[in-house]
Amino acid sequence: MKRILVLNGPNLNFLGIREPGVYGTVTLDVIEQNIRRLAEELSVSVEFFQSNHEGALIDRIQQAYGTTDGILINPGAFTHYSYALRDAFGGIHIPTVEVHLSNIHKREAFRHVSVIAPVAVGQIAGFGAMSYELGLRALVNYLQDQAG
Amino acid sequence: MKRILVLNGPNLNFLGIREPGVYGTVTLDVIEQNIRRLAEELSVSVEFFQSNHEGALIDRIQQAYGTTDGILINPGAFTHYSYALRDAFGGIHIPTVEVHLSNIHKREAFRHVSVIAPVAVGQIAGFGAMSYELGLRALVNYLQDQAG
Amino acid sequence: MKRILVLNGPNLNFLGIREPGVYGTVTLDVIEQNIRRLAEELSVSVEFFQSNHEGALIDRIQQAYGTTDGILINPGAFTHYSYALRDAFGGIHIPTVEVHLSNIHKREAFRHVSVIAPVAVGQIAGFGAMSYELGLRALVNYLQDQAG
Amino acid sequence: MKRILVLNGPNLNFLGIREPGVYGTVTLDVIEQNIRRLAEELSVSVEFFQSNHEGALIDRIQQAYGTTDGILINPGAFTHYSYALRDAFGGIHIPTVEVHLSNIHKREAFRHVSVIAPVAVGQIAGFGAMSYELGLRALVNYLQDQAG
Amino acid sequence: MKRILVLNGPNLNFLGIREPGVYGTVTLDVIEQNIRRLAEELSVSVEFFQSNHEGALIDRIQQAYGTTDGILINPGAFTHYSYALRDAFGGIHIPTVEVHLSNIHKREAFRHVSVIAPVAVGQIAGFGAMSYELGLRALVNYLQDQAG
Amino acid sequence: MKRILVLNGPNLNFLGIREPGVYGTVTLDVIEQNIRRLAEELSVSVEFFQSNHEGALIDRIQQAYGTTDGILINPGAFTHYSYALRDAFGGIHIPTVEVHLSNIHKREAFRHVSVIAPVAVGQIAGFGAMSYELGLRALVNYLQDQAG
Amino acid sequence: MKRILVLNGPNLNFLGIREPGVYGTVTLDVIEQNIRRLAEELSVSVEFFQSNHEGALIDRIQQAYGTTDGILINPGAFTHYSYALRDAFGGIHIPTVEVHLSNIHKREAFRHVSVIAPVAVGQIAGFGAMSYELGLRALVNYLQDQAG
Amino acid sequence: MKRILVLNGPNLNFLGIREPGVYGTVTLDVIEQNIRRLAEELSVSVEFFQSNHEGALIDRIQQAYGTTDGILINPGAFTHYSYALRDAFGGIHIPTVEVHLSNIHKREAFRHVSVIAPVAVGQIAGFGAMSYELGLRALVNYLQDQAG
Amino acid sequence: MKRILVLNGPNLNFLGIREPGVYGTVTLDVIEQNIRRLAEELSVSVEFFQSNHEGALIDRIQQAYGTTDGILINPGAFTHYSYALRDAFGGIHIPTVEVHLSNIHKREAFRHVSVIAPVAVGQIAGFGAMSYELGLRALVNYLQDQAG
Amino acid sequence: MKRILVLNGPNLNFLGIREPGVYGTVTLDVIEQNIRRLAEELSVSVEFFQSNHEGALIDRIQQAYGTTDGILINPGAFTHYSYALRDAFGGIHIPTVEVHLSNIHKREAFRHVSVIAPVAVGQIAGFGAMSYELGLRALVNYLQDQAG
Amino acid sequence: MKRILVLNGPNLNFLGIREPGVYGTVTLDVIEQNIRRLAEELSVSVEFFQSNHEGALIDRIQQAYGTTDGILINPGAFTHYSYALRDAFGGIHIPTVEVHLSNIHKREAFRHVSVIAPVAVGQIAGFGAMSYELGLRALVNYLQDQAG
Amino acid sequence: MKRILVLNGPNLNFLGIREPGVYGTVTLDVIEQNIRRLAEELSVSVEFFQSNHEGALIDRIQQAYGTTDGILINPGAFTHYSYALRDAFGGIHIPTVEVHLSNIHKREAFRHVSVIAPVAVGQIAGFGAMSYELGLRALVNYLQDQAG
Repeated sequence: MKRILVLNGPNLNFLGIREPGVYGTVTLDVIEQNIRRLAEELSVSVEFFQSNHEGALIDRIQQAYGTTDGILINPGAFTHYSYALRDAFGGIHIPTVEVHLSNIHKREAFRHVSVIAPVAVGQIAGFGAMSYELGLRALVNYLQDQAG
Repeated sequence: MKRILVLNGPNLNFLGIREPGVYGTVTLDVIEQNIRRLAEELSVSVEFFQSNHEGALIDRIQQAYGTTDGILINPGAFTHYSYALRDAFGGIHIPTVEVHLSNIHKREAFRHVSVIAPVAVGQIAGFGAMSYELGLRALVNYLQDQAG
Repeated sequence: MKRILVLNGPNLNFLGIREPGVYGTVTLDVIEQNIRRLAEELSVSVEFFQSNHEGALIDRIQQAYGTTDGILINPGAFTHYSYALRDAFGGIHIPTVEVHLSNIHKREAFRHVSVIAPVAVGQIAGFGAMSYELGLRALVNYLQDQAG
Repeated sequence: MKRILVLNGPNLNFLGIREPGVYGTVTLDVIEQNIRRLAEELSVSVEFFQSNHEGALIDRIQQAYGTTDGILINPGAFTHYSYALRDAFGGIHIPTVEVHLSNIHKREAFRHVSVIAPVAVGQIAGFGAMSYELGLRALVNYLQDQAG
Repeated sequence: MKRILVLNGPNLNFLGIREPGVYGTVTLDVIEQNIRRLAEELSVSVEFFQSNHEGALIDRIQQAYGTTDGILINPGAFTHYSYALRDAFGGIHIPTVEVHLSNIHKREAFRHVSVIAPVAVGQIAGFGAMSYELGLRALVNYLQDQAG
Repeated sequence: MKRILVLNGPNLNFLGIREPGVYGTVTLDVIEQNIRRLAEELSVSVEFFQSNHEGALIDRIQQAYGTTDGILINPGAFTHYSYALRDAFGGIHIPTVEVHLSNIHKREAFRHVSVIAPVAVGQIAGFGAMSYELGLRALVNYLQDQAG
Repeated sequence: MKRILVLNGPNLNFLGIREPGVYGTVTLDVIEQNIRRLAEELSVSVEFFQSNHEGALIDRIQQAYGTTDGILINPGAFTHYSYALRDAFGGIHIPTVEVHLSNIHKREAFRHVSVIAPVAVGQIAGFGAMSYELGLRALVNYLQDQAG
Repeated sequence: MKRILVLNGPNLNFLGIREPGVYGTVTLDVIEQNIRRLAEELSVSVEFFQSNHEGALIDRIQQAYGTTDGILINPGAFTHYSYALRDAFGGIHIPTVEVHLSNIHKREAFRHVSVIAPVAVGQIAGFGAMSYELGLRALVNYLQDQAG
Repeated sequence: MKRILVLNGPNLNFLGIREPGVYGTVTLDVIEQNIRRLAEELSVSVEFFQSNHEGALIDRIQQAYGTTDGILINPGAFTHYSYALRDAFGGIHIPTVEVHLSNIHKREAFRHVSVIAPVAVGQIAGFGAMSYELGLRALVNYLQDQAG
Repeated sequence: MKRILVLNGPNLNFLGIREPGVYGTVTLDVIEQNIRRLAEELSVSVEFFQSNHEGALIDRIQQAYGTTDGILINPGAFTHYSYALRDAFGGIHIPTVEVHLSNIHKREAFRHVSVIAPVAVGQIAGFGAMSYELGLRALVNYLQDQAG
Repeated sequence: MKRILVLNGPNLNFLGIREPGVYGTVTLDVIEQNIRRLAEELSVSVEFFQSNHEGALIDRIQQAYGTTDGILINPGAFTHYSYALRDAFGGIHIPTVEVHLSNIHKREAFRHVSVIAPVAVGQIAGFGAMSYELGLRALVNYLQDQAG
Repeated sequence: MKRILVLNGPNLNFLGIREPGVYGTVTLDVIEQNIRRLAEELSVSVEFFQSNHEGALIDRIQQAYGTTDGILINPGAFTHYSYALRDAFGGIHIPTVEVHLSNIHKREAFRHVSVIAPVAVGQIAGFGAMSYELGLRALVNYLQDQAG
């Protein structure tokens, strides 16, 4: 049974409160429940971690080394400048899928660039809470392909 | 029953032949079969169109006006410069999802920019043939949310 | 009697449908009727051609060689990147006037640049359907000045 | 009867003297006579003001507030850097049309940018003295559309 | 006997008419005759295709797959922006030589960049009709080296 | 009674020690005492928080949600790159005033840009410890205007 | 008793009329009355000068030499390009505080840069008419610190 | 006898007062006396004009048309942005020499660019008051060469 | 006896695991042992601190104030964007040497810039674990020179 | 009989030794022999000069003045920055052809720019030793066309 | 008696031959004779050195150390990229005046930048051979001011 | 016994004379003596070469081919633009260490870039004469690792 770690970066714990016009009204709890349901359907285990601290996310990624098969991450604003987060992925070689609630490619210019992308399998952006579910499917599919 | 148009831009008819190291060995036919199977599962109808001609793609998008509920597009290299294609979407207001086989955000710099993104619901990149299936799920989900 | 060719680029056949907030609700047919009426008033003949295909526009410009005295063009989105279209004008030396429905200089940054401008007599932008009428007047006036 | 103010920026009083290769040999007086004739034809009143002083142009624009229905302006070189002139228009909400004798989009790079464009209805460039007549037609037409 | 495809992009059918000051007065027909003569001398077969349509060029390149040993291309203005054309070459792995009539590196800045170069063996620019002959020699030589 | 949160970013706890030539010799304690005195005068309550940790500042901003009426922040170096901090403000809609001890607009180029500014009411920079007092006055005044 | 000169740049005499959505409905007269009241409270004398002419502002700054202790300036649009205004301050060494009604750092990109900032003590932006009062306090405080 | 106009731009009337560390302690009066003495030696007549108003300088340049043989100008800060001043020279075709007290090419980056240079015979920068004398010699020499 | 603090930034605790192709297989423990051995040889005391948290590194630098004579730091990815870390050094005036395992100047473009360099004595990059030893020698030598 | 000078810039004497993966294993001697053979065939005389010294190449180009009919040059790395070399060609007006062993347009970005191109007839790049032979043919052909 | 070294960079020995349209027909010999005559008039000794070799110019500048009072240099194309030449001046602290025959500020963009300017007293450009005479006067005047 | 070549670029022979504020007062002779002493300690042989001529440095690097095991270079100002020097290293595959007396990363922007870095093992900057000793240790260590 594949073990998936779902990471959420800064301010995502405020989902549903923060800028509902941009991000929708679904909370992170609801997203986690949806993901758990889909994980069960796909026969994978999931674990969740959210932090507003870049360092805490890096610590958590390092703990994943050897105990996790894939990572689903919404890096929040760290997407655009946290080279430290990027290097954390560079070191552990765990397949990672990057998701975003909003379509970052149609917002402010600084949000068009992802410094995480070079270490991710792929990116899904713009589908609200659904982005996570698509990301989980993509990740599990990728792990099966690799295994196969 | 929602009607979905699946558009493929230049060189995608050569999939499986063209740069398999980057794009994998699956052909466009196989992708279409997978999409048909998933469409049936999701109870939507799908139609396919591929062209190496920017103008032909625009003509096809215009024909979709009033007869199509959603568009799934892999614009190929047009992603990065075809403002004409972008404006075609600007005119018809049909929800559109943008997919890419490779993770364009980790390739050459010119591939990091999508001029189509500002008129798309969202973007999925990097999962090979699977990008299309995720895109179809995302699009159908989006149409249901709107309807709902 | 001066022969004028009126060219319309991609998506302009969807005028009145496409983004009425930006381009107004007048259709291309109405514009053509207005232009015909004004052409009669100015004693010039007019011919119309619209295409979503860059190549078809270039073909049409080449056909104009030797049979046309002036060209009025709204290049649509090709304005901003079609160096091939620009070179077509470079080759035939027929006085050309560039028109735009919207004031491209106050929209997205990429629309501020016209690669067609260096081969045009002048540019008129921002007056909706009226831009064409002004353009025809400008062109006929220019041809008369040259003749004079 | 609509009241139109025709503004001319720096060095335009030297028209016919200044760089005839670029701007033609017509003087500002001749342009004003042509405009008066056309104004009569279009049943609008016109008033003229030229200055080499940015501040004098701003003062004149402010005086127009409440006494003028439309402004036709050739901002000369102020086109490219006078944000103060632009803000003057921003404050009075009088429809404004921007005209240029030469096709600024095919000259030196610094002339491709108009800081006035964002507060203008539209722009006409490249038709010499004729640019003013086209501009007056465009402006009167715009005012009639608004009134209508 | 090596089979060579000679491709010509937009406006090259107007050679001898278009900007003779820049491109000379030789027509495309004359160039083709010269190339045929040289091909005979070098014991290779040649086929010609010209189009103003980006899509038609891509279609033709795809047809070359499996039936052609080398491609000689003058991409015209597509040189500078047609990533779709570039990707067409990326997919078929047929050795390609890029030629230009004028020395693009001493003309307008936008002509200094070739988006085709990364998929070409080499580039020859500035020798008018002679560029094609040099290109054919270079291509045949390259194919012989590979064979050898 | 309005509740104000005063946030200080990295290295501001070393004020008076750190680069006195640039930031003066006043310590953060003295600033807090001055602010308390002025808060009393303005009849608002104040609370202080300083951290060198971006995540801790975001956590504190989130806690402010529903319990605070306005935020006065000196983001220190986070001003120039912490999009995560900016997004924290984006989520809570509490009026925020940005203050700086030094005039950041006359120092190194990277300090001229504030990524926080787009989510702040206004910015005060260059008056040393006095910047905080001016900021508090500005914030209280803003809250009263809103209330009024 | 410290003598303060309050300078207002182009279009600020139209305050309350000009773009009330951006700048509020308070007129320059009201601001001057408020400033006079505060000046009395702070025991300083104030003098006012507004002009739409860059040269007139420079002339006034030069007159201030030897007769004024501090300058409070809202340079309006000159903030962003008038190096001549900046040099006027460079020559007289009178402490100067720069104020703006709107938060220029969250508006159009060209408004993010102040060429005046390098010769000012500090900058206050975004608090409407209140910006002037904060600026006066800041300036008087600065002059007292220097004196002290 | 050649007639020379010596123009001084903004803030140069404050020479000797303004930033003596950068510009030296010589006043504009002293420079004018030196220039008069040298003019006598070189048998040319000189006239002086200084203004802080861009428009006044343009007016004066226009008056020079037909009555002046050469212009010596220190445009002050207008050097770097006054395209209106540049166009004034463009219109009158009077040989113009540009002088600067300081070596503008080793100061702030914005001072490295002269928008006046393209319409000037040459530029002299960095020799304090001596720059004017060198400029006068250069201008007189140039006029003699032309005459010769 | 000089007291040296050796700081390691994010992901350096994963050395030997993380990208051995780029950084080698030596672990941070081995580096620390080597440094301890060299410290003994050079008669200085060393203390070590590693964190993935920018804030924790800043806290540790502040603690060093008054108790440490020199700092040896490998800032990891913080090298390229942590202005907060840079300002921490700006405040304490302890001589600091910056080391990197890889030659950052030959890797991705973003790694060529060090925002820490302006507050460091010098930089050593590219010698793997040896970079630390060279850095310690450089730092001790610098402290002796200062003392001398 | 036309006299051709073949110039080789820095490091080309190390051909065959230097980066054979990029430049092939052919030595400069072999290239010279090939060129001599082809020169005989084309009935032109050739002379060779190689130097690692920019100045020596310029000296040699100056000696060519009046004694040479055409120059074939591989400027090596000087291609990208030696404006002095470019100016040497600017002064002598001898037709010059620029050749490169590798396709510089697909290598590092700095190699895409040739500062020599503006003074060369044309450029040939990417065909290894064959580039020289093509270059000689191009040059001789050009000289014959000019003579003809 | 002050000793002046007159340095000329690459291609200046070809003056009068090289691009007379840009640089005039006067040779370097004539310039040297003029300079000798003026030197006598100004009672200074002059020595001349020209080289196409950057290194030879640096060697000559180093020899000037302790034996020369001022340097007059026309660095030719080295002006725009030879940081080594600039550093040579940085080391010897001999007052240096930079001259150019043409007005480099109105030619190609790369010629607008002088990397020598930061180590020169001033710059004179655009007066042909006269630039040297003006430069000598400027230099002698500067040395006298320093002495005085 | 490993053979090391120590290369010094332009102006380094003037060390101790040239800008002592930036580079210190130690001469190149003293540095060479220190290096000889350390070389003896490390049991390697050293040879020295300094030149102000780019070509001479390249010649010397080529001579090193087959007779030298490692190169220690301070390229001086060539660091920032000599692609020819860089290519010299590219051809010989001798491990090279780049050293700088000053911390180039905190000086003028042009000194932040090293075009030599991509062909060097590593870089040491900022430790004055000590940089060479550290560089020698680093180089010898690298050669031993390779040998080992």
